[in-house]
Amino acid sequence: MPNPELLETFPNPCSDRDYEVFMTCPEFTSLCPLGGVESDAQELALLQGGAPDFATINITYVPHKVCVELKSLKLYLWSFRNDGIFYERVVNRILDDLVRATKPRRMTVVGDFNIRGGIKSVITATHDGPKRRTAR
Amino acid sequence: MPNPELLETFPNPCSDRDYEVFMTCPEFTSLCPLGGVESDAQELALLQGGAPDFATINITYVPHKVCVELKSLKLYLWSFRNDGIFYERVVNRILDDLVRATKPRRMTVVGDFNIRGGIKSVITATHDGPKRRTAR
Amino acid sequence: MPNPELLETFPNPCSDRDYEVFMTCPEFTSLCPLGGVESDAQELALLQGGAPDFATINITYVPHKVCVELKSLKLYLWSFRNDGIFYERVVNRILDDLVRATKPRRMTVVGDFNIRGGIKSVITATHDGPKRRTAR
Amino acid sequence: MPNPELLETFPNPCSDRDYEVFMTCPEFTSLCPLGGVESDAQELALLQGGAPDFATINITYVPHKVCVELKSLKLYLWSFRNDGIFYERVVNRILDDLVRATKPRRMTVVGDFNIRGGIKSVITATHDGPKRRTAR
Amino acid sequence: MPNPELLETFPNPCSDRDYEVFMTCPEFTSLCPLGGVESDAQELALLQGGAPDFATINITYVPHKVCVELKSLKLYLWSFRNDGIFYERVVNRILDDLVRATKPRRMTVVGDFNIRGGIKSVITATHDGPKRRTAR
Amino acid sequence: MPNPELLETFPNPCSDRDYEVFMTCPEFTSLCPLGGVESDAQELALLQGGAPDFATINITYVPHKVCVELKSLKLYLWSFRNDGIFYERVVNRILDDLVRATKPRRMTVVGDFNIRGGIKSVITATHDGPKRRTAR
Amino acid sequence: MPNPELLETFPNPCSDRDYEVFMTCPEFTSLCPLGGVESDAQELALLQGGAPDFATINITYVPHKVCVELKSLKLYLWSFRNDGIFYERVVNRILDDLVRATKPRRMTVVGDFNIRGGIKSVITATHDGPKRRTAR
Amino acid sequence: MPNPELLETFPNPCSDRDYEVFMTCPEFTSLCPLGGVESDAQELALLQGGAPDFATINITYVPHKVCVELKSLKLYLWSFRNDGIFYERVVNRILDDLVRATKPRRMTVVGDFNIRGGIKSVITATHDGPKRRTAR
Amino acid sequence: MPNPELLETFPNPCSDRDYEVFMTCPEFTSLCPLGGVESDAQELALLQGGAPDFATINITYVPHKVCVELKSLKLYLWSFRNDGIFYERVVNRILDDLVRATKPRRMTVVGDFNIRGGIKSVITATHDGPKRRTAR
Amino acid sequence: MPNPELLETFPNPCSDRDYEVFMTCPEFTSLCPLGGVESDAQELALLQGGAPDFATINITYVPHKVCVELKSLKLYLWSFRNDGIFYERVVNRILDDLVRATKPRRMTVVGDFNIRGGIKSVITATHDGPKRRTAR
Repeated sequence: MPNPELLETFPNPCSDRDYEVFMTCPEFTSLCPLGGVESDAQELALLQGGAPDFATINITYVPHKVCVELKSLKLYLWSFRNDGIFYERVVNRILDDLVRATKPRRMTVVGDFNIRGGIKSVITATHDGPKRRTAR
Repeated sequence: MPNPELLETFPNPCSDRDYEVFMTCPEFTSLCPLGGVESDAQELALLQGGAPDFATINITYVPHKVCVELKSLKLYLWSFRNDGIFYERVVNRILDDLVRATKPRRMTVVGDFNIRGGIKSVITATHDGPKRRTAR
Repeated sequence: MPNPELLETFPNPCSDRDYEVFMTCPEFTSLCPLGGVESDAQELALLQGGAPDFATINITYVPHKVCVELKSLKLYLWSFRNDGIFYERVVNRILDDLVRATKPRRMTVVGDFNIRGGIKSVITATHDGPKRRTAR
Repeated sequence: MPNPELLETFPNPCSDRDYEVFMTCPEFTSLCPLGGVESDAQELALLQGGAPDFATINITYVPHKVCVELKSLKLYLWSFRNDGIFYERVVNRILDDLVRATKPRRMTVVGDFNIRGGIKSVITATHDGPKRRTAR
Repeated sequence: MPNPELLETFPNPCSDRDYEVFMTCPEFTSLCPLGGVESDAQELALLQGGAPDFATINITYVPHKVCVELKSLKLYLWSFRNDGIFYERVVNRILDDLVRATKPRRMTVVGDFNIRGGIKSVITATHDGPKRRTAR
Repeated sequence: MPNPELLETFPNPCSDRDYEVFMTCPEFTSLCPLGGVESDAQELALLQGGAPDFATINITYVPHKVCVELKSLKLYLWSFRNDGIFYERVVNRILDDLVRATKPRRMTVVGDFNIRGGIKSVITATHDGPKRRTAR
Repeated sequence: MPNPELLETFPNPCSDRDYEVFMTCPEFTSLCPLGGVESDAQELALLQGGAPDFATINITYVPHKVCVELKSLKLYLWSFRNDGIFYERVVNRILDDLVRATKPRRMTVVGDFNIRGGIKSVITATHDGPKRRTAR
Repeated sequence: MPNPELLETFPNPCSDRDYEVFMTCPEFTSLCPLGGVESDAQELALLQGGAPDFATINITYVPHKVCVELKSLKLYLWSFRNDGIFYERVVNRILDDLVRATKPRRMTVVGDFNIRGGIKSVITATHDGPKRRTAR
Repeated sequence: MPNPELLETFPNPCSDRDYEVFMTCPEFTSLCPLGGVESDAQELALLQGGAPDFATINITYVPHKVCVELKSLKLYLWSFRNDGIFYERVVNRILDDLVRATKPRRMTVVGDFNIRGGIKSVITATHDGPKRRTAR
Repeated sequence: MPNPELLETFPNPCSDRDYEVFMTCPEFTSLCPLGGVESDAQELALLQGGAPDFATINITYVPHKVCVELKSLKLYLWSFRNDGIFYERVVNRILDDLVRATKPRRMTVVGDFNIRGGIKSVITATHDGPKRRTAR
């Protein structure tokens, strides 16, 4: 089960300037959800249900008061390993959990999923947080 | 025959936020149309008529109320396999069928066709749907 | 149906020297065979039966008395388009048909099939024909 | 001699929507012009005059009422094969001829010429035609 | 737990000729083994024990009497997903299980593991089975 | 210890025009900081404390009155070699030190750090200095 | 017409040692031959006859008494420009002409022709000349 | 010594339309300047003084009344070969000389210098000339 | 100081079959040695002495009775970090230390060092240990 | 003038084992020789004589008693900068000079010259020196 409580943060060490952090994790894996729109037939479900999905997860954000701690992010992403979940939910769930944990000025999560049935999918979701007040 | 009835959708699981879905299918194939501007000569038509075309189809969209179901999209794209159809129509037809089925906020279809006669063609068509009302 | 009668040849224009011809066709497509070991369940067969396969076919040979005519090779490879056939048979069938048509000194056929179920397959088969008698 | 009469068109099959067509021809060849600024010396002209130039020609356009027919475009580009012509004229000439034949909403021609004397040249020219009136 | 009983075979459709089958699976994942030489300290084990490993598994073989069935191979490789196992054992285990199931003329298994601690590992193991008696 | 006193400058040789200087140093190395959020457990600290980090540092700036001297920049970047410091601080520290030394019109520092624990990080920070007054 | 009289040579400046010269010319062009096996139909011949072919020609040789002069090789390759000739003949003709002109210890000519009808062809021919007598 | 008198121009053959010319010369070489900030120590100067620098020079411009002649540009760039000159001056000097010779509507010069002391430098300078008056 | 006592081993888990282990460490760094042939001049030594070197170290071996433990190898390679040592010695030293620790059947060490003074160096050394007695 | 007296050596630090050193210098430049077979016409000579050539020089050798000192090799390669010399002589000259200076067990020099007149040249020459007496 995705476990957002694994996420830890540390105080932004350079809060007097907006800067961007990009992190890419090419080793994300979860499971295809059982039942539902993906598998009308029971027979098919037995063969394919819970098949592994693989993705690269890219996260870009501008920290506000805290930064996400790298090792805790790794543990959080591992917590999807044996969870059945749709592509669209993976990306929006990670974005929701990270926004809740870090309240960033801006954050984008991209899930770049491996080819399935001859089709490759990439999902991109963005959250806009509080802007820095600036004279410029 | 391209069969849009194969397209299935499921409710957008994250409708409170605009996000983008990109899908690429490198295994599209159709046939070159018989007769018409492509083949003035009857002799030529016999040799080349119905020659296979190959393309990568890229689809990018922002879901509104529904998402396109991946497996049904695959079956829909297969339905062009033995159809004689021009490049320009392939791309606009896929866009029309997907817009009708999903009524997205925005959708772009790109058909990147293999080289023919020493020339490569890429066709790009975009549909703009209803924008999200936003305070920003 | 694979149709070896489409293959045409022309006399080797340089038969006083062994030389190598390599041809690559990145646009091969056939169908996955219905029934048999691939689909235990009837339900699955209905969904996946006849699913398209895509491959690059590479042919390398040393001509003996005749060369394979390029356009006829193209038409021959097209004749697999709507045929259900296993990977291993595709490659050995092409090798058999070409050997019968051209009786080459040596020929290798490689079928490099697109990823299916997260696994990519490449099949390689070679035929050795009559060697040139040489003083060296 | 560049022969614009070879260019043929067909009615735009999707005129209710602006879409973009990109065509790339990596097999363009013409000759370096004899005499003029390129060859001050007679001796040099004899050795280099009419030396072949090679280029990739990229064409991007938004069709208006007609599309350019692919095979006729190929024949038109072949008609430069034995013509002595400067890089700048090649690109502007192709743009002029295609604009005259298709009256597009927008068209860009790029000529990407092979290295000569250790220097590579790329020429880009754009034509803006009638815009679609739009409510947006 | 790696489950070799998942492996299925089908009769070699072209047993009158040696040919090579190459399969690559870029989506292999297992777990780092708990305890043992990898984790001297208990504290470390809690943080890192069971950390996921990722690899590409390449299998090359010359079939003898049977071929390995592709879908069953996929299911077999999935069975390592939640197993703690060393790199060297992964590769030799897959080789042992496949040799037992298919008794090939020759087989090589390569495990290309993702970077860990700044070091990337690739393990290669080969089995030689019964050679074809040949006049050549 | 990062030593900004190593940075030397020379007068901007072309101060009548804004131009951009990009420098990339693929050989940056520092140490992971001991203690703090990265290592809760004492045992882990002993094994991993002070582990080397590697990065490519990219610097882009528009010089104002002085340019940074290349060799002194190299010596300055070497001064991080045996320093324990977080990614976010590395990038903001280099930007602060270079801005203080050169007072540029604009400067961006990007730290592209090697993968750690299966995750790669890229940090980007920008400083805006005095704009050129311009009639355009 | 291919004109071998354009080929010039100069004395091998280092004849006391075997060494290898590799030359690659990515700008070879000739014409597809009119009539013959390539075009059964008269109509087709009118449309496609004399269509340009493009290739990269690679030449590797060990000089004996003379080397081929680079500029003369370029002029010789240009002489195929408006000649209708099959792929197999292009490569063997260049090899024959260069062997006659330079009598090398060994020479290989490779013609790597651009894709036609979805198939790419590469022809390789080798000539073995007099070996150096050596004590080793 | 850089010799701008080598630069020749020819009348813009298509002055009724703005178009862009890009030229890249990957074979630029000059010398590192002797003395000055680069070499504090006399000993070092003897070993490194006048060391060769290598760069790719990219030039992009929109011609106004004249175009720069390609062969004269090559000779001009050769004239830096044995000149001691800083990176920043190379790029601004080439821009100044070319602007003076061609008075373009716009011109950008990029000098992409090979790695020195583990650091790579790229300098970019732009000149804006007279704009075309346009109704758009 | 290179510290071979950091190297740990574990029993070869599959000693009934020869197999190959390849490990690549792209993050090796040491220092250029002070004094000696590299720096004739005292002045130069002050500026360049102890300059960092960077390399990728590739190790390929066939284990005999033990395998090298991955984490201990990492710690061993870190121990060169602040050591002044020549390229040739780095590679032969690592080979000597690993052979002494693991007594492999065969081992090759490759040091691929970053460009210095415009020249890149790659050093390769191999050790042959006891061969497996085999009936083949 | 190529100056072999610049070459310095140091004693082979690991003479009890054969190992290989590969060095690549992508920054070699010399001049095209004036007069001779390259320029029949006086006019042409004035325009092209002394034109710069650029190459990557690759050197692979097994040291015997001495190694070539890297910095002296760099200075030696610089000494070709303003020398007019043919490709074939460049490579054989460097091989001769390095063999004389280092008497290696084996050495290969490859000169990979930039494209000229649409043709690229690569010259490879090898010297075999005294073999190590070995029991194997």
